[in-house]
Amino acid sequence: MEINENLLKNIRKVEPYVPGEQPQNKVVKLNTNENPYPPAPGVQKALRELEYDRFRLYPDPTAKNLVDILAKYYHVGNDQVFVGVGSDDVLAMCFLTFFNSEKPVLFPDITYSFYKVWAGLYGIPYECPKLDGDFRIQREDYYRDNGGIIFPNPNAPTAIYEELEFIEDILRHNQDVIVIVDEAYIDFAGRSALELLAKYQNLIVVQTFSKARSMAGMRIGYAIGDPELVKCLNDVKYSFNSYTLNLPSLICGAEAVKDREYFEKVISEIVDTREWTKKELRGLGFEFPDAKANFIFAAHPDYNGEELFQALKRENIYVRHWNSERIGQYLRISIGTKEEMGILFDSLKRYISKQGDYNL
Amino acid sequence: MEINENLLKNIRKVEPYVPGEQPQNKVVKLNTNENPYPPAPGVQKALRELEYDRFRLYPDPTAKNLVDILAKYYHVGNDQVFVGVGSDDVLAMCFLTFFNSEKPVLFPDITYSFYKVWAGLYGIPYECPKLDGDFRIQREDYYRDNGGIIFPNPNAPTAIYEELEFIEDILRHNQDVIVIVDEAYIDFAGRSALELLAKYQNLIVVQTFSKARSMAGMRIGYAIGDPELVKCLNDVKYSFNSYTLNLPSLICGAEAVKDREYFEKVISEIVDTREWTKKELRGLGFEFPDAKANFIFAAHPDYNGEELFQALKRENIYVRHWNSERIGQYLRISIGTKEEMGILFDSLKRYISKQGDYNL
Repeated sequence: MEINENLLKNIRKVEPYVPGEQPQNKVVKLNTNENPYPPAPGVQKALRELEYDRFRLYPDPTAKNLVDILAKYYHVGNDQVFVGVGSDDVLAMCFLTFFNSEKPVLFPDITYSFYKVWAGLYGIPYECPKLDGDFRIQREDYYRDNGGIIFPNPNAPTAIYEELEFIEDILRHNQDVIVIVDEAYIDFAGRSALELLAKYQNLIVVQTFSKARSMAGMRIGYAIGDPELVKCLNDVKYSFNSYTLNLPSLICGAEAVKDREYFEKVISEIVDTREWTKKELRGLGFEFPDAKANFIFAAHPDYNGEELFQALKRENIYVRHWNSERIGQYLRISIGTKEEMGILFDSLKRYISKQGDYNL
Repeated sequence: MEINENLLKNIRKVEPYVPGEQPQNKVVKLNTNENPYPPAPGVQKALRELEYDRFRLYPDPTAKNLVDILAKYYHVGNDQVFVGVGSDDVLAMCFLTFFNSEKPVLFPDITYSFYKVWAGLYGIPYECPKLDGDFRIQREDYYRDNGGIIFPNPNAPTAIYEELEFIEDILRHNQDVIVIVDEAYIDFAGRSALELLAKYQNLIVVQTFSKARSMAGMRIGYAIGDPELVKCLNDVKYSFNSYTLNLPSLICGAEAVKDREYFEKVISEIVDTREWTKKELRGLGFEFPDAKANFIFAAHPDYNGEELFQALKRENIYVRHWNSERIGQYLRISIGTKEEMGILFDSLKRYISKQGDYNL
């Protein structure tokens, strides 16, 4: 049945974000930057002890247990912490709450592709200063008049981390607009912009449970900022959906934060594997910016990125590839276990040696 | 530290929805229409068997297992089912997706108070035709030019259910706009508008796991409609947050749908308690529209609504009360267990007899 044209007239048309594939069969999955290790053991215990009959009641809309434990962990007030259904939900709320100027919001041309999607969804004007030839953000590009700024640190998908002095420079030049630093990968990288909160009211730091805390499947993200900004975020959130985080997320999320030792062990294991992966990839002739996240953004000067991507996929190794300007040669490779990375290297070696044969 | 005025200038200001209180201590909680019975036993089993190490992976963004089982249960295509984080998330997405006309969206003056909040959040114009003196929706009010229609059936907080012939009349008069029937309480009431889907492309039916399925704590809601409309909803959802329902919701949600027998037993128990509650309240002199939901919207001609509400609260019995025009005399009383309702009746009797003393 053909649908009535009038009916379609007032429906919002959007170009949706396309997430990385989620293959359901047995594969080496290095395509969505998931953590290869399970969450903290306390999460398992909390899940075991969770009483299913509590599901009949609404969860605490203020997510107090989770907010309090995050505030304590990061040494901020509990009126400075906003939680949501993954950092995507938190970032979407930030766009809706903070980016209401007629001036363009600024973010890099090569970055997390969801920023463009949110701007499109809410009709927010934006401009995308180009990364330089080494995929670095040029701080001077962010000194002009704008309606707000957002960028990840480390940036995605380049994995490049900028030092706090760089972040502070951008904050200092933009004290009349909100600057969001999206720190999804900060735990693998270096110092967090959280240190700058005491000095800059215009800073919002967004982090997630999906990467270093091994909880992508639970959908938990958070923003930390000035209490007044967090109040604005909560007002918008309560205008959207009062009860977002469900009971298992509230309970298991809090447990995950409690275990600092396990958290640091997992991070150090992944960083260790990443450094080994860099060495191996370099040995195979790959080139990449120095990666500080749980992924590496690598290209090989002799082989086509798309073909490499497809060749790996045929061997059930999933990495991420975009057919986009400037980055079509690159693969974004998540850091898995050492065993998984070994399988990747073997496959790459086979591919390279085969191409060698053809080239003879 | 006083916040920079320029910083606040471009921040969205909203009047957030105020959810019912969620007291944490031991109380008789009849204020947010929760189900007094636990979810289906299969949910407990699924929760027990859930492997916490799967939390490290993103959940299926298409929520296929849940969508498929809902489609099968309601005899619709799986391209006709959209799922979200509670029906509030689903409804918020519907507002964003479907209500983009310059003409006002129509909903009743007395209804679910979130409709006004979403319209405010997205800057959607709206008008609120008045319910009549018996709190009934006047269908003729919805025959005029408009940008879309939404109302709950049964309506909230009145608990009045309208027959399908009434719904169909509104659908027939509005074939160029989307009509959303919010059926959060339909399982306690009567026939669902889902029956009309085959005839009306402009119909979206929204339901929830929070009431009859005892899963308020898990945050699961869904919309069913024409495949083309569901595609538009999904496009907007993927532009907002690709991964919304977390793993426990996907798994436990599907389990809850499987057990039709338990579902029907719980509903029949609640309906039974509701009918008994009606008799008891009538005996105490309360007046109310015929309630078809899991709550009753009742007022007493001799006692002030606000005072009654406070008196019950002092005895740790929570019901819902709004200090609003036309409904300030009313209490919305959720249907709990027979034991909980007995405690309520005893408290009301004490209150009434005390007032009698004062009146001597």
